[in-house]
Amino acid sequence: MNNNDFAKLLNENAQKVEKALDDYLSNKDDNGLAQSMRYSLLYGGKRIRPFIVMEAYKLFSGDASVEKAIPFACALEMIHTYSLIHDDLPCMDNDDLRRGKPTNHKVFGEGVALLAGDTLLTYAFEVLASNNLVSDKSIRLATLALSKCAGFSGMAGGQMIDLSSMNNIKSFDELKVMHSLKTGALIRCAMLLGYYAACDNPSKDIIDDIESYATNLGIAFQIRDDILDRIADCETLGKPVGSDDKNGKTTSLTFMSVDEAQGLVDSMTKDAIASIEKYYDDKDNRSLIDLANYMVGRNK
Amino acid sequence: MNNNDFAKLLNENAQKVEKALDDYLSNKDDNGLAQSMRYSLLYGGKRIRPFIVMEAYKLFSGDASVEKAIPFACALEMIHTYSLIHDDLPCMDNDDLRRGKPTNHKVFGEGVALLAGDTLLTYAFEVLASNNLVSDKSIRLATLALSKCAGFSGMAGGQMIDLSSMNNIKSFDELKVMHSLKTGALIRCAMLLGYYAACDNPSKDIIDDIESYATNLGIAFQIRDDILDRIADCETLGKPVGSDDKNGKTTSLTFMSVDEAQGLVDSMTKDAIASIEKYYDDKDNRSLIDLANYMVGRNK
Repeated sequence: MNNNDFAKLLNENAQKVEKALDDYLSNKDDNGLAQSMRYSLLYGGKRIRPFIVMEAYKLFSGDASVEKAIPFACALEMIHTYSLIHDDLPCMDNDDLRRGKPTNHKVFGEGVALLAGDTLLTYAFEVLASNNLVSDKSIRLATLALSKCAGFSGMAGGQMIDLSSMNNIKSFDELKVMHSLKTGALIRCAMLLGYYAACDNPSKDIIDDIESYATNLGIAFQIRDDILDRIADCETLGKPVGSDDKNGKTTSLTFMSVDEAQGLVDSMTKDAIASIEKYYDDKDNRSLIDLANYMVGRNK
Repeated sequence: MNNNDFAKLLNENAQKVEKALDDYLSNKDDNGLAQSMRYSLLYGGKRIRPFIVMEAYKLFSGDASVEKAIPFACALEMIHTYSLIHDDLPCMDNDDLRRGKPTNHKVFGEGVALLAGDTLLTYAFEVLASNNLVSDKSIRLATLALSKCAGFSGMAGGQMIDLSSMNNIKSFDELKVMHSLKTGALIRCAMLLGYYAACDNPSKDIIDDIESYATNLGIAFQIRDDILDRIADCETLGKPVGSDDKNGKTTSLTFMSVDEAQGLVDSMTKDAIASIEKYYDDKDNRSLIDLANYMVGRNK
């Protein structure tokens, strides 16, 4: 695809997800909790993780309609959103801004923000298990993938390393482990959810390729984030610039220059692409490859 | 059963759950997060919710072995434990003591306590979906039950009411709605999980009876808790006495005397029992009926 077509696809998918997320929350009484959930969940973003779910579904099913994958895509976005709300809390990263808006707890208070995160995390599994278009086996595989990727051996485990060793990461390899858990896990999960929506009898080879795509892309994405924190301006980024430096946080730039880091982003993106290239025919929209390239070049 | 036999059964079940919970956490690296999870999860308590899961499984399956129900019982206890850790945080109830020990955040810090709660909540769904002794359909039903009972229309929704209307509950009926969500939901969930471990083709009549048992018992349990907060001594209760009064919290005792409240506990317990009595034969151990009576008389 050319850049315009890719941007169009990204936008179309994002709108489908936004609509579905809005529907999932529309039947909730507005007692403040739903309002707080909605504030962080519905913001019209690019929805990169849901995009991966939908495009992985298309890739592994050959089905251009993504109806079967949308509940899984929404569940993952709820998990992602809960983690942002909790990470922003004063006892974690203590951030006041997220995507250019006040963070959830700044608007609704810490208690409600905590509860909104808990409720989004819980609701993700309800949405997952309510997907009536796929088999019980697919739901079970998806539940396992989501809980593992979000939990102790995934995102939450990565957050614990982040929390406990803010100034104490001794090598780039240690940092990569953390990024693989914090960011790679949800990309892996996105790929797996798309695959399980397409198929309830998974192949080990495909899982291995998914693993390689996700780990490389996840680390590349996070290093790119470190670079942006250093070089972007506040308006472009939608959050304070240089907050990592200000907080004395260990990032990839603790161990290398911006140019070296960008070189690594490029080579890991290439490895990510190599893992999944074989699944595309010549005539296909190579959307997950375009996504990888897009993530290297993103400005925010 | 006589009191001794019931106490013995409660203890046997609790030991099975304690062992299984320990096993579920034993393969986790001890990076501080697992330690914090273990601190709150493994405390040798009575494990009333898991008891209900196991005894409901026995009742609806006729199977005396509870192997199939144990993963579901553990998942529910993880949800219960996460909710206690988060409820104790300074931005919620701000409690320093729980079961006679310092609360999780007092020992591990707020950030780790937050993350330990998140991780237990997430792990509950992994444990649920890893139950290899039941069908995919049972897992799906259990995932829906657990997510609904713990989420917006259950425990978390109840906690939101608690948080937002601490001094603003106008009637006992409003309070009952909150108790039904906060406490009744997890008892309902315990019954449902036991039922779904026994059967993946549920009957509406049984679900209705489960609903009635759980709602009545949940509210009775919570009113009894209000009574104990007023009258018990600190050592028996394992937490500061009179904290509800101190915090100016609306409880059932805002609307009635201790004697009236105890009368209500008794009548609701009777209603709870009436809902499930028909499922027991004369020769059965009527364990869920004994449990209801036990909960009325408990001292802590």
